[in-house]
Amino acid sequence: MAQPITVSPEALAERVSRIFLAAGLSPLQAETLAATIVAGERDACKSHGIYRIEGCLRTVAAGKVQPQAEPELQDDGSPVVRVDAKGAFSTAAFAVGLPVLVARARQHGLAAMVVNSCTHISALWPEIEAITAEGLAAMAMCPSYATVAPAGGSAPLLGTNPFAFGWPRKDASPYVFDFATSVMARGDVELHRIEGRPLPEGTAVDRDGNPTTDPAEALAGAMLPFGGHKGSAISTMIELLAAAMIGDLTSTEALDYLGTTTLGPHHGELILAFSPERFAAGRGDPFARAETLFQAILGQGARLPSQRRFEARKRAAAEGIPLTAEEVEMLERLERAPFGAQA
Amino acid sequence: MAQPITVSPEALAERVSRIFLAAGLSPLQAETLAATIVAGERDACKSHGIYRIEGCLRTVAAGKVQPQAEPELQDDGSPVVRVDAKGAFSTAAFAVGLPVLVARARQHGLAAMVVNSCTHISALWPEIEAITAEGLAAMAMCPSYATVAPAGGSAPLLGTNPFAFGWPRKDASPYVFDFATSVMARGDVELHRIEGRPLPEGTAVDRDGNPTTDPAEALAGAMLPFGGHKGSAISTMIELLAAAMIGDLTSTEALDYLGTTTLGPHHGELILAFSPERFAAGRGDPFARAETLFQAILGQGARLPSQRRFEARKRAAAEGIPLTAEEVEMLERLERAPFGAQA
Repeated sequence: MAQPITVSPEALAERVSRIFLAAGLSPLQAETLAATIVAGERDACKSHGIYRIEGCLRTVAAGKVQPQAEPELQDDGSPVVRVDAKGAFSTAAFAVGLPVLVARARQHGLAAMVVNSCTHISALWPEIEAITAEGLAAMAMCPSYATVAPAGGSAPLLGTNPFAFGWPRKDASPYVFDFATSVMARGDVELHRIEGRPLPEGTAVDRDGNPTTDPAEALAGAMLPFGGHKGSAISTMIELLAAAMIGDLTSTEALDYLGTTTLGPHHGELILAFSPERFAAGRGDPFARAETLFQAILGQGARLPSQRRFEARKRAAAEGIPLTAEEVEMLERLERAPFGAQA
Repeated sequence: MAQPITVSPEALAERVSRIFLAAGLSPLQAETLAATIVAGERDACKSHGIYRIEGCLRTVAAGKVQPQAEPELQDDGSPVVRVDAKGAFSTAAFAVGLPVLVARARQHGLAAMVVNSCTHISALWPEIEAITAEGLAAMAMCPSYATVAPAGGSAPLLGTNPFAFGWPRKDASPYVFDFATSVMARGDVELHRIEGRPLPEGTAVDRDGNPTTDPAEALAGAMLPFGGHKGSAISTMIELLAAAMIGDLTSTEALDYLGTTTLGPHHGELILAFSPERFAAGRGDPFARAETLFQAILGQGARLPSQRRFEARKRAAAEGIPLTAEEVEMLERLERAPFGAQA
């Protein structure tokens, strides 16, 4: 049995990247995917941490991602920057588009990055934070798989469709949120099932469309959007803007394409970047005015989103990332044979 | 006593416009404000209908709007179009900016309209629908007054901050939503107080930050955002993008400026417009793909947002808008003296 270890984010990223290289990923895909996964692990966001490595490898083994594809930038100088991922992992496509998105947002005040035909396994906040690090505000959204019923409906149609936003702060971690537009992430419903815990009321319906708190019935039925018809409307907006509008798969089409929710979805993504200086146009300092708002939120005892992640990040930088014996064992196993028995 | 009448939208708009002209509004402000108010009445959206006329007139009488101001377009050819309302009603500023926003969105694929220093009394959907009528998708947001506590907090800080979106449809009314990011609109809490009805759980806290279902205590305390921390995050995003970023008042600053929630707030607004054709770039027909989504929503018995409004609109076009005796009396009173005893 392996021993628990503590590892620096850099060393872990190096190790994960080598696993992906050995699995046949291009250097860009291996490095960016490893960086994103280690960012999740570093931020104590376990559901997006090294646990995801095997899901990525399963998606490669199933032939549902193009591990050697080189994403192609399509840039006509307009504020709409496009990256055709050509079936690569989204992290590689984002890395190719980011410098151009940033340049266009500074030039025009506002810009969009469309990513097409990518395989998505990561949260949106690493992308949001890459943009806020450049002093820009950012909004991102993408569909996922049809597992959520629209408000008033009873059958899976929408995805858990994440919606994310970030605002840069000068001497602090950025203001960042990134959440599923379903009441609960699908992984959490799965976790309730494994642990035999009932779901909170209002999380899901069974396959007949009746409210249920049974996680197994919920997984066979449909999850519900957060906030009733309002969350349902936002989730629908995400299908429209980040699927129909950009010529990529809706959550229903993504599920049809893959036939399972256990692999990374193949679809697109929409990211907007705003230059606060350009939008403020000399009407005060937008960053100072945002600080007043943040201090007022904190001043009444409320938290800013992502604060827990940023606290974990500080700990990881100071003390390293702790990995359990099981996690080390998994890494060693994947280092020996990334595809296990199938390879 | 006046008699109930039925009136065409056009005739009612003419009548409301004359009241505003007599109250000293510029022709552009009078016409656009009347059109927006009559659109609300026509769509059986009573809280944004002719009931609003007196609130507008109170705001004029209080000197908190500049009735003769001519909004100024600031256009540098970039995708960020700016209108300084110079204290005019927002409807006039929007009318000045709309053609340029539409042209820029077609030219660049994506454009934003920033409205500064306007007085806002209307819903966002009339603006959204003016953009979808041009074949563009639209997103709009603005702060309001500090009446909502952030999730985990206890004191008013955010506004009811509406968030709106629209998608154009070729042979049907557009897909449009426009909702407060609080659980309940403030006017509805007020209505519960007048009718002596308790609020649903989770709507508000009292002035000590404790949950309350008493509308009077809620009005003295704070309303809560919809969807817990998710709605709170979206509401905060609106303060950042549509106040701090565009150099205009946050909900806290707007309340400080006016000192009351009974007048129209003075602040700014952010509107984004997207060209679906430009974003799709030949990857299928975005409108046809959106229809597939809408039919799937309707096919499982769910509704599209705003359907009730569109049904009322059809009735109004066919049969006219019914006004009660009290409503006719109000119009006649305002026609005699728009400012009543104060004038």
